[in-house]
Parts: sequence; structure tokens; C-alpha cells
Amino acid sequence: MPRYKLLIEYDGTLFFGWQRQRNFYSVQEALEDALFSLYHEQIHVLGAGRTDTGVHATGQVAHVDVEKDIPPYRLQDGLNFYLKGISILDVKKVDDPFHARFSATSRHYLYKILNRRAPSPLYQKKAWHVIRPLNVEYMQEGANLLLGTHDFNSFRSIECQAPSSIKTLQSFKFERHNDTIFATLQAKSFLHNQVRIMIGTIHLLGLGKWSIQNLQEALEAKDRTKAGPTAPPWGLYLTKVEYE
Amino acid sequence: MPRYKLLIEYDGTLFFGWQRQRNFYSVQEALEDALFSLYHEQIHVLGAGRTDTGVHATGQVAHVDVEKDIPPYRLQDGLNFYLKGISILDVKKVDDPFHARFSATSRHYLYKILNRRAPSPLYQKKAWHVIRPLNVEYMQEGANLLLGTHDFNSFRSIECQAPSSIKTLQSFKFERHNDTIFATLQAKSFLHNQVRIMIGTIHLLGLGKWSIQNLQEALEAKDRTKAGPTAPPWGLYLTKVEYE
Repeated sequence: MPRYKLLIEYDGTLFFGWQRQRNFYSVQEALEDALFSLYHEQIHVLGAGRTDTGVHATGQVAHVDVEKDIPPYRLQDGLNFYLKGISILDVKKVDDPFHARFSATSRHYLYKILNRRAPSPLYQKKAWHVIRPLNVEYMQEGANLLLGTHDFNSFRSIECQAPSSIKTLQSFKFERHNDTIFATLQAKSFLHNQVRIMIGTIHLLGLGKWSIQNLQEALEAKDRTKAGPTAPPWGLYLTKVEYE
Repeated sequence: MPRYKLLIEYDGTLFFGWQRQRNFYSVQEALEDALFSLYHEQIHVLGAGRTDTGVHATGQVAHVDVEKDIPPYRLQDGLNFYLKGISILDVKKVDDPFHARFSATSRHYLYKILNRRAPSPLYQKKAWHVIRPLNVEYMQEGANLLLGTHDFNSFRSIECQAPSSIKTLQSFKFERHNDTIFATLQAKSFLHNQVRIMIGTIHLLGLGKWSIQNLQEALEAKDRTKAGPTAPPWGLYLTKVEYE
């Protein structure tokens, strides 16, 4: 049975996260519904990352096994015909051992902060609106402290199921373009809410409320209650998943 | 009576253009309603450019005369409290001779084209989706031909009221970033639909359907029917209005 790799964009505000669940419409369910409309079969969609409610994606990856051997562009156009709020950017035929989640070697996220007094109708639910001025240089110092391998227990949701909270953060950069601050992150994998808690905590440094010392202590505490708030989901974008 | 200059962003898909009109809700009407809510007075809002239905703005300018002398930030926050889909980015007190429309020395527009097979839920009605690949270098050649002073009669709506169709295009640049093509334009002023007709026509060059010669002939014809289609409004952004 041929396996296909899907590259997926979606507006996270339209779904209750990636993961299929009772009573709440998810990206996974929308994709499985579209596959059912196309092939009249229950086809399971397996994603690289389980994004939360409100989190966007421009480069989510999933794989599906379809009975029929079809040209990838037909699967793409067929799915896009049925989907709303989700777009299949690319489809590739892959070998059977390819697994969207377990074969992934790296995940990239972008977090957008709109840093100005006035709200933005054009970025409504597409960025976190922080009114008070943020010091991006100081936020970068904080990001540098979190780079590398650490126990990120302070920076994961108390509901996180991962057996270990030790992760390696390979890249964490802040850049400002006019009113917007772009944070880009890369790691093999992240804990549940890790990016949003790191952003929410580092924004306290940007506001001048926290020092690097406070951040160091929060990291060492390995205790969620010692870190800062969880930044809202609508600033977050899963931009890329890499494979060997 | 103090005069205030407003810098305005809006999502054009939520309004029937800038200009107040019977039965259709416009940006101007929304602003005048917000001013009425704030000051219980009918205050006229005068804009620099009358954007069409669906056209966005990140840098529209307007002026208002308000009886009370108030700190600019209070006018900004007060208006933003009442507005939905519109945001006041800045307010400055200006001298009486300042006129949002007649004092303007230059207007800047951005036109976004999403050039790929798949649609984009995150850019829904924020860019023109063109599926077939566009040759940006050739489009730039076309743009260069239109630079300078010409009779743009082929490139204005048949409903355009301007007494003369002679305009000077000061800048017209195309740039591609991944899937998105950004066209930026600058002139003292534009004719009705001029940007959208120029973009729609030059996209025929990008597709390889038209040659530079065809564009030259369309310009010389001074006849709307000899130019290409009008590009959709939702790719267009009024980004900046300059004053002395």
C-alpha cells in the first residue's frame, strides 16, 4: 500500500488542535473526513507534531497510506477541493519506513509578537499583541541561556506526558522588523507547551520585569510554577519538520 | 478647533471600501460612528485615498477636526475601543492647513501575489492566488516600461472621475520571497483602479501570454479595453501616504 507524505498549512484558530478527539473538530479529523470524501475509506492521518488549539502551521507534515496508487498532485488537488482552513502544499510518495512523527530529525517553530500600542486587524489572531515595549536584545540573552541540552521541566505543561523533560534546543533567535518580533526555534522535538512557556517567560525579560538571573533560577528549579506565563497559541506557527 | 492626523490600518474584506455611501458599511462610516460614540458629535473624517471594497490599508491617513483639545493618545485609544476591523496606529496634532488628501505628496501601495498551486488559509483574502508560475524578471521589465510620466488612460476604471489620466509613476518593483511576489508602487497619486489594472496586465507578461510589445501597445492605445484584467482587491494594501 503506497505511503504519501503531506506538507500542510492551516489556520489554527479554526480547529481544536491537531489531534482527533470527541466533540471537538480537529485538523486531523478534517483531513480524515476529506480522505473519506475522496476514497470512501477510513484512512488514518499521522502527523509530525500535535499542535494545540489556536496554533498555526505552515509546514506541518503527516503521512497517509492509501490503497490506490495515485499521482501525488491528484491527492493534493483532491484534498484541497474538500478542505477549508487547511491547505495541502505538497504531496510526495515515500517508502514504507518513513514515519511523519518518528522519522523527524528536527522541528522548527516561529513565534510572532506584535509589539505596539494599537491592535492589528490584519494580524488578528495571527500574532501575540504585547503593548509595552520589549527589549529584544535582552530577550535574545535569555534565549541564549536556554540553548543546548537542559532539563526543561519548568517549561512544560503540567499535563505533558513525555517520560523525560530533557531536551536539546538547537536554535532560538529573536529579530525585530518594525512593529513585529519574530522568534524562531529549532529542536529535534519539544515538550508540550515548551515554546509558548519559553516565549511567555522571556517576554518578562523583554519587559524588564525579570533578569537573566531570574531565568537561570526558573530553569534550575525544574518546576512549572517557577517559570513565566504561557504565551497565547495564535502567535505560534509550526513552520518546518525535517527528515534525514 | 484642533485638527488631528490619524494613521489607520484596516482589513478591507470587512468593509465596502473607504467612502461613505448609502446602505453599504464603509471604513469612513465606521470611523465617524466611533467618533460619535466618543464625543456625541457628527465629526467628518477626510481620508488620503479612497480604497475600494476589499482593499486593505496598513498606512491610510485621515484628518478630523475635534472641538475638544485632547491628548492624541486618548483619541487613539478611544477610537480603538469602539473600532472592529480597523485600528488607529497613531494620532498627531497638526496645523490647520494640513489636509489628508490635498497635502499628500506621495502614496505607496503593496500588491501581494501568492504564486503556487495550493491555496493558503493563512493568507485567505490577503493576497491574489495565481496558480501558474509567474516570471518575476519579465514582470519587472513590464513595470519598468510603465515608470515615469504617461497617459494611463488604458489603466484606469471606465468609472474614473479624474479630469486627466496623465500620471507619474515614481517606483514599481517586483520581488519574490518563496511563494509570494511583492509588488511595491509609488506615485503622487493614482487613477481609479490603476494599480490593480497594471498588476492584472503585467501578470499576463509573467504568465508568458503577453510580450513587452503588447504592453507598449496597450499603453499607447489609451483605451481600457486594450489593457489586461483588473487584479482582485484583496491583494492590494495602501501602505503609506507621505507629506512635506
